[in-house]
Amino acid sequence: MNTTQNRQIRLAARPKGQPEKSDWDLTSAKIAEPENDEVLVKIEYISLDPAMKGWMMAKRNYVEPVKIGEVMRAHAAGHVLASRHHAFSPGDAVSGILGVQTHAVVKGTELQHLDTTLAPLTAWLGPLGSTGLSAYFGMLDVGELQPGNIVVVSAASGAVGSMAGQIARTKGAYTVGITGGAEKCRYITNYLGFDASIDYTSDHVEEQLRQACTNGIDVFFDNVGGTILDAGLANLSLGARVVICGAISQYNQREIFYGPANYMSLVYKRAQMRGFIVFDFIDRYAQARHHIASWLSNGDLHYDIDIVHGIEQFPEALLKLFTGDKLGKLLLKP
Amino acid sequence: MNTTQNRQIRLAARPKGQPEKSDWDLTSAKIAEPENDEVLVKIEYISLDPAMKGWMMAKRNYVEPVKIGEVMRAHAAGHVLASRHHAFSPGDAVSGILGVQTHAVVKGTELQHLDTTLAPLTAWLGPLGSTGLSAYFGMLDVGELQPGNIVVVSAASGAVGSMAGQIARTKGAYTVGITGGAEKCRYITNYLGFDASIDYTSDHVEEQLRQACTNGIDVFFDNVGGTILDAGLANLSLGARVVICGAISQYNQREIFYGPANYMSLVYKRAQMRGFIVFDFIDRYAQARHHIASWLSNGDLHYDIDIVHGIEQFPEALLKLFTGDKLGKLLLKP
Repeated sequence: MNTTQNRQIRLAARPKGQPEKSDWDLTSAKIAEPENDEVLVKIEYISLDPAMKGWMMAKRNYVEPVKIGEVMRAHAAGHVLASRHHAFSPGDAVSGILGVQTHAVVKGTELQHLDTTLAPLTAWLGPLGSTGLSAYFGMLDVGELQPGNIVVVSAASGAVGSMAGQIARTKGAYTVGITGGAEKCRYITNYLGFDASIDYTSDHVEEQLRQACTNGIDVFFDNVGGTILDAGLANLSLGARVVICGAISQYNQREIFYGPANYMSLVYKRAQMRGFIVFDFIDRYAQARHHIASWLSNGDLHYDIDIVHGIEQFPEALLKLFTGDKLGKLLLKP
Repeated sequence: MNTTQNRQIRLAARPKGQPEKSDWDLTSAKIAEPENDEVLVKIEYISLDPAMKGWMMAKRNYVEPVKIGEVMRAHAAGHVLASRHHAFSPGDAVSGILGVQTHAVVKGTELQHLDTTLAPLTAWLGPLGSTGLSAYFGMLDVGELQPGNIVVVSAASGAVGSMAGQIARTKGAYTVGITGGAEKCRYITNYLGFDASIDYTSDHVEEQLRQACTNGIDVFFDNVGGTILDAGLANLSLGARVVICGAISQYNQREIFYGPANYMSLVYKRAQMRGFIVFDFIDRYAQARHHIASWLSNGDLHYDIDIVHGIEQFPEALLKLFTGDKLGKLLLKP
């Protein structure tokens, strides 16, 4: 591998259904020099996120699509190699939307300093990154969590779900996690401290939720969509809050995005369903990170990082988000 | 017709899909005498409501189902014939959940006095009844209407929709109504004062909404569900409120209740979707009726009443709710 080269993953085609290897190009270019106010970053870890599927598509959702031929958008963290911005010096740990590549040249204004004495780089893309922040604001602000609430989290062993459930438990909620397979069920109850687990691969989720939440679900934090969301809607308490964080089960559907057939429960239960984008809460990131870091240090929050090595592995690594073949936060080390 | 007889519509069978004549029995019984604390009411008008379809089904939604063989549940208004309750005297105008029948004997505590100097009996089942109150609380409280908002109402020529749109306009909103056919479109713009109309029978609703609401929809008040709700979701503004009042397009589906496939717009637009049941606001009915009555008297609100005569017409009259073959509030005069 030539260390003077920047290896980059570019979007070659918009996927039909599940992203395929042919949707990507691996290209190589000379590492650029930073110009005025710019910083050159060596990327150490790239965050793999379900939102990437949306960014690949032609239609704008909440951000512009990645253009064909562009370096794929990604949150990433690394160290400064060279800087022409006053706030950054070589060796600084930083994060930003740096793309799926080995090196990035970006404006200093687009970078955040990371305090690696508080937590390692990987944690800054996990519990202290947009993953953990999504869980935090989604559960506490959008979900309006109250102590004693009955909380259900789908994709509970995933990056966001695992944080959302633990934050709820830390705040005094009864937490039920939905995940796939006996091993992940054990993981979320024995290791993450969920009060109960439901295995969607073998259980009848709607019926199991009814048994696990006899008074109904106060907060349903959904990362999955599809029939899992319907099962949650069928078991709401009066005044419940349904937090829509994602819909991983639907992102690769070729034609029909499944809408929640049980949405009239919102009427019967006088409930609300709300979506959110974490960067709306940017003014409160510092405060949230302070809380999350203290929960991490006192052992209230646990997290796992699943690392795939080699930038050329990106196309296959991305699919792990959809197959569930990983635990906790999925990162690529380019 | 024997005036000593109470003619009653009873639920004979639970409908599969659209209610049929065979789902009903018309029976006759001697008019009961009121006992202690009870009141005998001669029913003048019976409110026909989409919610009736839900009450016919075996599954509880927000109230118990009507049992097979029971008199069908209905809001109704009439006059007291005989009273053994201290608060009611013969001749008093009253309303309550009196059922689909010509006479009702109920506890006095289940009746409300109606001030017919303020508005006629029919209005007390329309703009001053749960119809108007649903529009009022749905738009102002659940929809959190603000002056200058862009508001879209589906089933805009219907009982609730016509009120919801006019209340929004009265509060300074720009109002777009979705309804079926050129005549109803003219009705809502020329007579009810909507700013614009969309004819779902001939227009591409999603595209027309895009043109009518270039800055997006702030409040989508939905009575319809199905693809109309999807068209609304595709055109939300940032922070929009989607008020779920009903889903008339779906109530008679035999198998599949269509869920809104575009619900992820709630994420992209940081929007909320909320359901409600009007009787949660009962403490504020008097205040709301005061406002509605003043809007009626100063000409801000218009309403139409569509009256079907003859209790035996109930099964067919009910279907007008689903075909849209009526204007404004549909009442049965038994």
